[in-house]
Amino acid sequence: METNEIRINGDRLWQRLMTMAQIGATAKGGVCRVTLTDEDKAGRDLFVNWCEAAGLTITVDEMGNIFGRRAGQNNDLPPVLAGSHLDSQPTGGKFDGVYGVLAALEVVETLNDHNLITEAPLEIVSWTNEEGARFTPAMVSSGVWAGLFSLEYAYGREDKNGRFLGDELQRIGYKGELPAHHRPLTAAFELHIEQGPILEYEGRQIGIVTGVQGARWYHLTIPGKESHAGSTPMNVRHDPVKTAVSLLGRAYAIAEKYEPDIRLTFGDLRPSPGVVNTIPGELLVTVDLRHPSEAVLDEVEGLFTKLAEEHGAKLVNIWTSEAVVFAEKCVQAVETAVSITGYSARRITSGAGHDSVYLSRVAPTSMIFIPCADGLSHNELESATQEDVVAGANVLLHAVLAAAQP
Amino acid sequence: METNEIRINGDRLWQRLMTMAQIGATAKGGVCRVTLTDEDKAGRDLFVNWCEAAGLTITVDEMGNIFGRRAGQNNDLPPVLAGSHLDSQPTGGKFDGVYGVLAALEVVETLNDHNLITEAPLEIVSWTNEEGARFTPAMVSSGVWAGLFSLEYAYGREDKNGRFLGDELQRIGYKGELPAHHRPLTAAFELHIEQGPILEYEGRQIGIVTGVQGARWYHLTIPGKESHAGSTPMNVRHDPVKTAVSLLGRAYAIAEKYEPDIRLTFGDLRPSPGVVNTIPGELLVTVDLRHPSEAVLDEVEGLFTKLAEEHGAKLVNIWTSEAVVFAEKCVQAVETAVSITGYSARRITSGAGHDSVYLSRVAPTSMIFIPCADGLSHNELESATQEDVVAGANVLLHAVLAAAQP
Repeated sequence: METNEIRINGDRLWQRLMTMAQIGATAKGGVCRVTLTDEDKAGRDLFVNWCEAAGLTITVDEMGNIFGRRAGQNNDLPPVLAGSHLDSQPTGGKFDGVYGVLAALEVVETLNDHNLITEAPLEIVSWTNEEGARFTPAMVSSGVWAGLFSLEYAYGREDKNGRFLGDELQRIGYKGELPAHHRPLTAAFELHIEQGPILEYEGRQIGIVTGVQGARWYHLTIPGKESHAGSTPMNVRHDPVKTAVSLLGRAYAIAEKYEPDIRLTFGDLRPSPGVVNTIPGELLVTVDLRHPSEAVLDEVEGLFTKLAEEHGAKLVNIWTSEAVVFAEKCVQAVETAVSITGYSARRITSGAGHDSVYLSRVAPTSMIFIPCADGLSHNELESATQEDVVAGANVLLHAVLAAAQP
Repeated sequence: METNEIRINGDRLWQRLMTMAQIGATAKGGVCRVTLTDEDKAGRDLFVNWCEAAGLTITVDEMGNIFGRRAGQNNDLPPVLAGSHLDSQPTGGKFDGVYGVLAALEVVETLNDHNLITEAPLEIVSWTNEEGARFTPAMVSSGVWAGLFSLEYAYGREDKNGRFLGDELQRIGYKGELPAHHRPLTAAFELHIEQGPILEYEGRQIGIVTGVQGARWYHLTIPGKESHAGSTPMNVRHDPVKTAVSLLGRAYAIAEKYEPDIRLTFGDLRPSPGVVNTIPGELLVTVDLRHPSEAVLDEVEGLFTKLAEEHGAKLVNIWTSEAVVFAEKCVQAVETAVSITGYSARRITSGAGHDSVYLSRVAPTSMIFIPCADGLSHNELESATQEDVVAGANVLLHAVLAAAQP
């Protein structure tokens, strides 16, 4: 059989996903396998057993990140890494994270089935505490690995019951000795459900993820003059809601010029005092602006600042997350895999954060998305079809193969 | 001296306003003379003393409403009534209510000064608990007098300390025996500060009040689809804030056609869940709509209902206060007084409620407004100039004289 004709074993992958979903299964069909709980330990143990049965060499680092290594033909080459995370939100689904881990294992199993040894070695990984649901921040362990956070900082993260991340790692037996520090990688891939509606909406099976969009949050403060709704004529009012109608309307119109990649959300509106018979003295509007390009974000921020000024309002940045552009060579490996497998695909930007964001700071990285029903995730109703689950794993297989050849 | 040349004694009136403002005076220059407190009793006692010194016959009814009667040439004619209320908000001003009472007394004093006996008898009045700050509802005593509320209901009103209105009337010695029930009046006038900015804005001294505008409150519910600000593209969103920009913008445009008398206020905006990175699943907007004409309110309500439907939203009425149109003969008496005195004036609609609203249900009634600084009232900073205070009282004098001639 030609290498290009190899496909993963979809039933084995699906079966393992359903088996893993039994650990922490919730009544509503979701999963509660929160990081460093007994359920997380049980999930890790099951994963490690499967890895060992597949002949992988397991190492656990100081952050509890689990690596399973499959030797290559040339073990001087840096490995190709594939994986994601096994932990879930408290009311999470069966696919978020775990799909990327078990699909990476399925890639190994498939290579084993075909006695195919890649040039570069392969490693699969499960990162600790991607979700950040119990210990903030999210993605803390890939962050330590990429050199962003110190081990001390990470160990000192405290849950709401006063337990520390470092102690809980010890307690479940996953505080390893391998330094949690980056080392050279040939490439890294993460397969994940989209957590958004684009692929489903467009009827495509594969998202070739080119990066993670940048996000900026602002407070837009629109001044008014608090006065009586009954006795103040319209022509002497200073009504911030009326100002907002114009200001937000023009902001939406500006955003339209940057479609389809821009995201503009006014999630909260806080009039003050906010009572039915008083013209508000002030209206605060939260602004969530996202785009894959920092240059575009700068440009739109400039236009919005000017727009706010024209309306006598003020736009103040309160949080920023920089855009990430994935390594073109990894994106191309995914595209090669798409053309080999023939699935319908489109380039896409991730709207959410992933371990790959931190990995991409120290290694060539990209991601692969598959559709999830109605864009839902972090939700017990999260779902993906077996057909799409299989498609994504086949693309991961061929992206790994493409990257592992020198 | 011709009757038309008579003017009130501005210094006496101003002096009495300042003397009365000492009772319950606050550090910030306002007044705290809340209904049926010791301060209210002191204010009433002072007023009654002044009335008796002016030769008026005092009666107090079951609701503590104080009437001071000056006989006419024909005492078979129903009296002309003028007055307002002596109680204040907890942080009220020196003019709201008390101005209308003391100006009515000043009219009597001026007629005494000129030995002028009107054809119809005159009565001046101070209504109990206009403000409703201690015992809800506001204007309860003129309401009982007009037959709207029962005496039992009014006596049973309870303050936040568990004291009852009926008991407190007794305690301060103002529970009279005269039935609190309407009787024929030739006309009734109430002089008041505008409690709005229109007269000051237009530089006019007198408002000829033609009625009280109707008010309708609504909940406007705009549906959306709750989704992630990062991963949901603009073209698949169902964003209720974007819908609101269009809906509210068109509502403001509709309102413009009904200027200058319409009032449209969106005082509160409640997005749900109202977080920065989530497109709201719903936006609730409160709507306060006012106009002097019920027919116009019906028309605009119809347009808004249609507009809401076009946007997939729902407009639900939550409160209504019907428009009041004052008796044309009383409005004309005020206009006659304006032309006699020569002050700059305009017809105006009251944005706030007054005892005159209830009076107008059982007797020909109208009101006279003077400007107040910056439209402020129910505020310790409430103020009016002596010049305007005098102008209003002169208009009241001549309106009373016009109405009191058969």
